[in-house]
Amino acid sequence: MPSNQAEFDLAVQIYKSVANLPIISPHGHVDPAMLLRDEPFANPAELFVFYDHYVTRLLHADGVELARLRAGAEPREAWREFCSRWHLFLGTASGYWLAAEFAELFDIDEAPNAHNADRLYDLIDSKLRLPEFSPRALFARFGIELLATTDDPCDDLEAHRALADDPNFSGRVVPTFRPDAYTNATLPTWAENVRRLLAKTGRTEANYKNLLDALDERRAFFRANGAISSDHGVLEPYTVELSSTAAEGLFAKAIAGSATSAELRELSGSLLFESFRAAAEDGLVMTIHAGVVRNHSSETFAKFGPDTGHDIPVAAEFTNNLRPALERFGLNPNLHVILFALDETTWAREMAPLAGFYPSVFVGPPWWFLDAPDAAMRFRDAITDTIGFYRGAGFIDDTRAFLSIPARHDMARRVDSAYLAKLVVQQRLTLEQALQIAYDLVVNIPKRAFKL
Amino acid sequence: MPSNQAEFDLAVQIYKSVANLPIISPHGHVDPAMLLRDEPFANPAELFVFYDHYVTRLLHADGVELARLRAGAEPREAWREFCSRWHLFLGTASGYWLAAEFAELFDIDEAPNAHNADRLYDLIDSKLRLPEFSPRALFARFGIELLATTDDPCDDLEAHRALADDPNFSGRVVPTFRPDAYTNATLPTWAENVRRLLAKTGRTEANYKNLLDALDERRAFFRANGAISSDHGVLEPYTVELSSTAAEGLFAKAIAGSATSAELRELSGSLLFESFRAAAEDGLVMTIHAGVVRNHSSETFAKFGPDTGHDIPVAAEFTNNLRPALERFGLNPNLHVILFALDETTWAREMAPLAGFYPSVFVGPPWWFLDAPDAAMRFRDAITDTIGFYRGAGFIDDTRAFLSIPARHDMARRVDSAYLAKLVVQQRLTLEQALQIAYDLVVNIPKRAFKL
Amino acid sequence: MPSNQAEFDLAVQIYKSVANLPIISPHGHVDPAMLLRDEPFANPAELFVFYDHYVTRLLHADGVELARLRAGAEPREAWREFCSRWHLFLGTASGYWLAAEFAELFDIDEAPNAHNADRLYDLIDSKLRLPEFSPRALFARFGIELLATTDDPCDDLEAHRALADDPNFSGRVVPTFRPDAYTNATLPTWAENVRRLLAKTGRTEANYKNLLDALDERRAFFRANGAISSDHGVLEPYTVELSSTAAEGLFAKAIAGSATSAELRELSGSLLFESFRAAAEDGLVMTIHAGVVRNHSSETFAKFGPDTGHDIPVAAEFTNNLRPALERFGLNPNLHVILFALDETTWAREMAPLAGFYPSVFVGPPWWFLDAPDAAMRFRDAITDTIGFYRGAGFIDDTRAFLSIPARHDMARRVDSAYLAKLVVQQRLTLEQALQIAYDLVVNIPKRAFKL
Repeated sequence: MPSNQAEFDLAVQIYKSVANLPIISPHGHVDPAMLLRDEPFANPAELFVFYDHYVTRLLHADGVELARLRAGAEPREAWREFCSRWHLFLGTASGYWLAAEFAELFDIDEAPNAHNADRLYDLIDSKLRLPEFSPRALFARFGIELLATTDDPCDDLEAHRALADDPNFSGRVVPTFRPDAYTNATLPTWAENVRRLLAKTGRTEANYKNLLDALDERRAFFRANGAISSDHGVLEPYTVELSSTAAEGLFAKAIAGSATSAELRELSGSLLFESFRAAAEDGLVMTIHAGVVRNHSSETFAKFGPDTGHDIPVAAEFTNNLRPALERFGLNPNLHVILFALDETTWAREMAPLAGFYPSVFVGPPWWFLDAPDAAMRFRDAITDTIGFYRGAGFIDDTRAFLSIPARHDMARRVDSAYLAKLVVQQRLTLEQALQIAYDLVVNIPKRAFKL
Repeated sequence: MPSNQAEFDLAVQIYKSVANLPIISPHGHVDPAMLLRDEPFANPAELFVFYDHYVTRLLHADGVELARLRAGAEPREAWREFCSRWHLFLGTASGYWLAAEFAELFDIDEAPNAHNADRLYDLIDSKLRLPEFSPRALFARFGIELLATTDDPCDDLEAHRALADDPNFSGRVVPTFRPDAYTNATLPTWAENVRRLLAKTGRTEANYKNLLDALDERRAFFRANGAISSDHGVLEPYTVELSSTAAEGLFAKAIAGSATSAELRELSGSLLFESFRAAAEDGLVMTIHAGVVRNHSSETFAKFGPDTGHDIPVAAEFTNNLRPALERFGLNPNLHVILFALDETTWAREMAPLAGFYPSVFVGPPWWFLDAPDAAMRFRDAITDTIGFYRGAGFIDDTRAFLSIPARHDMARRVDSAYLAKLVVQQRLTLEQALQIAYDLVVNIPKRAFKL
Repeated sequence: MPSNQAEFDLAVQIYKSVANLPIISPHGHVDPAMLLRDEPFANPAELFVFYDHYVTRLLHADGVELARLRAGAEPREAWREFCSRWHLFLGTASGYWLAAEFAELFDIDEAPNAHNADRLYDLIDSKLRLPEFSPRALFARFGIELLATTDDPCDDLEAHRALADDPNFSGRVVPTFRPDAYTNATLPTWAENVRRLLAKTGRTEANYKNLLDALDERRAFFRANGAISSDHGVLEPYTVELSSTAAEGLFAKAIAGSATSAELRELSGSLLFESFRAAAEDGLVMTIHAGVVRNHSSETFAKFGPDTGHDIPVAAEFTNNLRPALERFGLNPNLHVILFALDETTWAREMAPLAGFYPSVFVGPPWWFLDAPDAAMRFRDAITDTIGFYRGAGFIDDTRAFLSIPARHDMARRVDSAYLAKLVVQQRLTLEQALQIAYDLVVNIPKRAFKL
């Protein structure tokens, strides 16, 4: 919230008008089985440390071994490491969310430290046994109107169906189609993944055409089970339109393991192009997350797997990479593509101009490390001059940490309120316009972008 | 204007000291024939919608077909589309200018909407018939001291000469030499353009030497007709010094249509290098606009032509690209080069350091999408630490929209006043220094950079 | 300092708590001989103009020939040029430091100009004769706890030893190992440099293995003489792990002058990789300064040598370039690498994420042009969301201008205090936390990063 009094007062007024609106979470990584089983969370370390790589990475950078901070470690020991190094989180996005969660959910207003670590552990642990801290109770308490998970195309979506069929649960939880394992031919496991998908869909011959058909079939299955979007995580959002002959040739080399890295890039670009084609046909919204080197430390990846805190961004490029796909499908009213980049130089330079012309392109909120107050304010500053508010996609929490969902949405609402208050004080908007925009950012803008 | 009271008061004081100074507009896209004919504007849609691709692109992105928003469309229908979607422009640079023009010129203080669209149309339309709304009357009312247009080297500049000879018009309107059609060998129409230019200047043989001579001859013609600068719009500001043999060889391949894309890039780099050489010789100021993919949507380009809202920026590079030309001409006191980039990462990283050393290099104001309050403030923040205020080039409106000229210059003066006020409050400048700088930014700095 | 009153008051309170703490300067370019000889500074031009390329470059850009601004020129004439063009420095980082030095050291509060130039010259010149203006007196007055210089691996460090042995000087002045001349194989003088180093260390055969051994030997010598770090200035921080056969092959071609530029890049990448290996072994801290084209104007370089104001930044890349070295040594607790970039897009995108995971990686303060108030504030905004305060390296002045050391550290303390005050007002930190962080930024954070 702004430090200037006039802005502060207006920001509070705007914020209050949207603070209690329901949460729409159209992209994230919560496990649907958690809501299906509805079992209490095991302990504070499991809830706040073991699975949150934003927490473990800073502890690791400070010298704590990852093995002592992950599932399998002694929970109370991991919690003590976390509390005694709380100073590492001061000023960080993670620090703000964690403090908000402690305060809102557990009435803890003191900062964690080495001395109160055990007491806080016991306090949280005891609350986790209460019925109002069960996953479903929190789902209701958080006011979640829609929650999207992220799922493999081979997934049978049984947890989703069971949850939808459960008479005791009325929330809306939908899957998201995430085909990277099959469309990113540069992955070492790609050929194996493709064979698994083909087998799953009853196809014997491994060729490009069959891969596309298998993906389209699984998209239809996901749509039948409530999916609203497909998600694409790519190093670069490269697209290319190939003849079917050229594509089959590349596929044959790639599946045989004899393709060069340039050919694998070309094949991946063709498969991303085909995702645009499919989206224009079946209407699933596309979200594209571009510009990250995954698993930068091979040693850590070998020991602890993916999502362990060392995905590192690189410069991103959208203008040339997306052009072939937008040339073909960009004016198609059935296509919705929402762009996400950690490289904030692309917000004003490429994403806003693309969304300012193509009806199919929307600018996603600042992704990942960047869903933090200063970055979120830079995001608004970067895009608003060019495209105002109505070419965005609302807020997306993109989180694995179920408890952080309300804190993240609340942060977004505060930042947007502060930004709108600044425009009102500077007479760039009327208060009435600002209130309408604040409402639309939480309700109508995400609903339009995600076709809800 | 700042929301802090102390800064606000100072900003107002500084702004008032420069608010009514004449406008120097050394680069833009107004049609000189408009001022020559001095006919009333046809209707509100022609004035505010049909030719302003900042307006049409956001309406298009919201789902309106371009055919309904361009010359040939029903004006009142286009105006209704625009008014009923006014919310798209809230917070945008276009929205600020449009609101300023409505208020300043037509005394309209209400926001457009579906209900008042017809009434506003009639109100504006009736005013456009009044003598004080003729192009020349507005030229005088706006206080324009100099207006530069942008012209093709083959243009006979008849409108400019007629205007200069018109005893009833005392304004200064000068042409600008824009040779891209002949120096950018990657354009599909380049060979045809070159042949036209050679024919125009009475040259029969198509070779590199003749092209340079023809361009130099047209530069002299433009200078004789008042031109102060040449303008160069390039994807990348690549320059290279070639032997005449090498250049002739590339030219021969290019004109025959057999050059590779790498060779066309090399030839274009050589031709841009020659523009530096010519500028160092004849003293025309160079403006370089770098880093945009023109006409991103081929379908839209085919239907509606260029400048229809889908020129999309890419990352720009100046340090290496300009080096060959600056090695040869950068210390020449006769050379003035003003750099423009939409890629704001180059402002602090490359443009300011280059202008901070080479006497020939000046930093142009934030171009295009970016001539908007937040971007303009980021621009000042980015360059001032490194080069202060006196290596810039003042404000340039670069507009096709004649009526937006005063609103754009006014915005620039407000932003600069706000920035200077901040430095005064933080005791980084005295008020006296700030007032002098504010004056120089409007008067002496553009006059020096453009050799006026 | 902030213009908002609440922030201002808090910022002053935080600033006062650290304003008088000793200065730790672990990286810079002061000549140790200056402190050894302890002779008075010759005159104001030598002190403020001749050797400060931030000053001379802006005067040069404004049209003054460098020959009139450098050692050998008439000092009073150079001083007059400087004073009469003081407006060029308004708003710049150099302007702030110079004004601070004039006020703090010489009680000069008026702005220099053409009229007071001679009077200011005489005033400063007379003070320079006083004992309290000798280099050692100023060293004590500035409260410098540690000062690191930058030295060639072939240097005998005699000035350092003599200074350490001098019973009349109790300050700590340490050398820094700067091996670029021997590890950057793309330099025209590289082969000659390598032969000199091999001769210096008594090695006759020029091969890769001997070069590594010679460098390791000189590292040991530097460590024995107090060195705490090695410094690496590179166009790109490219690293690569080669087999010894491959490295020897590249070395042989390079020393024979027959290597391609791609091979020279590869060899340089291997030598930077070996610096990581050596640092993991002997524990010297590495500082890496990446992303500058040195000596952009060859004509100026030929006439006046390096460090004459035309080193121009380019886009930098860390994520891929450092990966090979971090794969091998990034988790080694003995390794400390501090990253510096002029390309501010890498702060949030690459440097902070790397430092947020690897215990060996620290984010250096904003380098060079950018150690200025607005850039320093952007730096805090860019990295803090991701890594808070404890993955940085404190402030580093990196200066040749001895008198600017306290002004630069004072600026850093003010900016950090202002940033912390903002977080306190916005309730993102408590005042107690902010005070602790302010102290750690000046004391514990640099001590940890530089292993002091």
